[in-house]
Amino acid sequence: MATATETDAMRRAVALSARALGDTAPNPVVGCVILDTSGAVVGEGWHRRAGGPHAEVHALTAAGPLARGGTALVTLEPCNHTGRTGPCAQALIEAGIARVVFAVADPSPTAAGGAATLRAAGVEVESGLLAAEAEAVNVAWLTSARKGRPFVRWKYGATLDGRIAAADGTSRWITSAESRSDVHRLRAEADAVVVGSGTLIADDPHLAVRGIEGATQPLRVVVDTRARIAPTAPVLDDTAPTLVAVGKDADTAHLPGVDTVRLPYAADGAGLDISALLAELHARGVRSVLLEGGPTLAGAFVAAGAVDTVTAYLAPALLGAGKAALAEAGIGTIADALRLDVTDVTRLGPDLRVTAVPTVPTATAPDEES
Amino acid sequence: MATATETDAMRRAVALSARALGDTAPNPVVGCVILDTSGAVVGEGWHRRAGGPHAEVHALTAAGPLARGGTALVTLEPCNHTGRTGPCAQALIEAGIARVVFAVADPSPTAAGGAATLRAAGVEVESGLLAAEAEAVNVAWLTSARKGRPFVRWKYGATLDGRIAAADGTSRWITSAESRSDVHRLRAEADAVVVGSGTLIADDPHLAVRGIEGATQPLRVVVDTRARIAPTAPVLDDTAPTLVAVGKDADTAHLPGVDTVRLPYAADGAGLDISALLAELHARGVRSVLLEGGPTLAGAFVAAGAVDTVTAYLAPALLGAGKAALAEAGIGTIADALRLDVTDVTRLGPDLRVTAVPTVPTATAPDEES
Repeated sequence: MATATETDAMRRAVALSARALGDTAPNPVVGCVILDTSGAVVGEGWHRRAGGPHAEVHALTAAGPLARGGTALVTLEPCNHTGRTGPCAQALIEAGIARVVFAVADPSPTAAGGAATLRAAGVEVESGLLAAEAEAVNVAWLTSARKGRPFVRWKYGATLDGRIAAADGTSRWITSAESRSDVHRLRAEADAVVVGSGTLIADDPHLAVRGIEGATQPLRVVVDTRARIAPTAPVLDDTAPTLVAVGKDADTAHLPGVDTVRLPYAADGAGLDISALLAELHARGVRSVLLEGGPTLAGAFVAAGAVDTVTAYLAPALLGAGKAALAEAGIGTIADALRLDVTDVTRLGPDLRVTAVPTVPTATAPDEES
Repeated sequence: MATATETDAMRRAVALSARALGDTAPNPVVGCVILDTSGAVVGEGWHRRAGGPHAEVHALTAAGPLARGGTALVTLEPCNHTGRTGPCAQALIEAGIARVVFAVADPSPTAAGGAATLRAAGVEVESGLLAAEAEAVNVAWLTSARKGRPFVRWKYGATLDGRIAAADGTSRWITSAESRSDVHRLRAEADAVVVGSGTLIADDPHLAVRGIEGATQPLRVVVDTRARIAPTAPVLDDTAPTLVAVGKDADTAHLPGVDTVRLPYAADGAGLDISALLAELHARGVRSVLLEGGPTLAGAFVAAGAVDTVTAYLAPALLGAGKAALAEAGIGTIADALRLDVTDVTRLGPDLRVTAVPTVPTATAPDEES
């Protein structure tokens, strides 16, 4: 059983890990706190970027000889493989750590096994402390590790009646300044931001992160089946890298110097194959995607079962006409609705931010009169 | 200044008033607590139904001679007119009440003036204590008194993407049992429940209150421009009275014995004139309307400026196709959106209930990149 001191230290490690959200792809965010034999904090650290030292190494360096005989609290199972840096399990053993408590097991086949290595070396190992908190911070990377594709968060801003634009196409601004600022935080935490060509043409967005100091700019991805993007589009500026995903026979002659990738078409012929797109992004090191729409692309992601979290910014406003937040998603009847669980509701200025994740459908309620 | 004892008594009076919500049309809900000279509660009462004693009379009867020299806490300014019952201001004076504290002034021309009558008789009068709380409970009646038409609450149940039915028209059940049960509470608190013929034909609803003991059944109103309702429709059973509003030249030969009213058409020719409908309901004593849809009728109410509160039951589900919650409401561009203020967000089982009221539009935010 973990002590109260260890729980406090793990809470601190989780908070440290969150500092690097959006900066560590293709690696997870990890935090580590080292306690000496008396329970005093003697070192802490977090993984800052791929290729840099892991959290445990930062924390062990800070602790120095005080780590000997001590306890390491780590948000993720210490890794067992030699990549660009050595295995953390080995580093902990060499530093003389007597006890390791980690929150979440590493689901990735190459890195897992750290716990076994530690135990074989006589280190006491415990797992699961603050697992829910650590999992929440690392959900994108953990999801990508489990599913073998990037985690996808679909974000949209709509009126209470589900419209993302008025009848004449105007949409600035449906949501509040507070909501729009929050979107920049989501972008900063993502490795890639994805929009469809419809949104590109309607809004000509720039998609870079603004207003967040030190943020790593995400890869901007335009899903543009017929390569309709203009070479002068703001999304192609040099603020951040941009990838344009086009159909396999699209004409890209007007896009010299633009990073394009040719992808197969979806089975229904409408747009690109979402799985192929996600595989391409995964291969490029993207572990978390912020899908910013529009409705057609979001529908394709929902139809492909590729939405892991929905973040809806709902403005208390009514339009009664105009584009809906979500278009055709292959759902024809109420029993096939994509059911979600609300995990958070937050008021942002006048708006509501609703976060929800797909759930396993429950049994249908018995029929009633209305 | 009201004392803490008086504030507690007013809070009790507000709670008492709420017991009769939905039962008192065309009267307001009112609660009253009498304190004796030492501040002890010696009588309480609330108005239960039109034609019955007012709250003050119930409370004075309970207090008897102990009211002399005491204080009356009343949620609404005591009335000054003789209707089916005598004026409450006079009853308070005759009982020897020395001080009257009321929460909200009476805006109706016939009943107002009670405060002046009391002061002229030497009674100390104070107003505004817990005004917000009392106003909230009595909002429907106060709105109807100020606007000269019934208060309208538009209620809908939709998915997070704003759909009230799937592509094939199925809609049972989008929202949870908890939400549907809450709708029965709203019905019980309303004087009339209104639906359009589209909803009637799609869902064949019954519209009566179920599961709430002692509830007064609201008038069921079907807005059926072309009199398409079948004489066998469940909404025409004898559980509660029903009014069918039809166009002025509709053929109602198939509806013998059904209470129908002929109304003029809307200026745009789409459906009935909403103001005429509300005037008819007002004339029948209806002070609060629960508008249950569908989207076309709700759009007409929004276009007529006749929605006072929106209660949205949002199910965490996505459909991507199917009927939207709100249809054409005469809003063509984002600047004309009907902006609301969220007054409450409550989780009901898996769903969110969002309550919002129309606001005065704020200045447009400065233009920004996205």
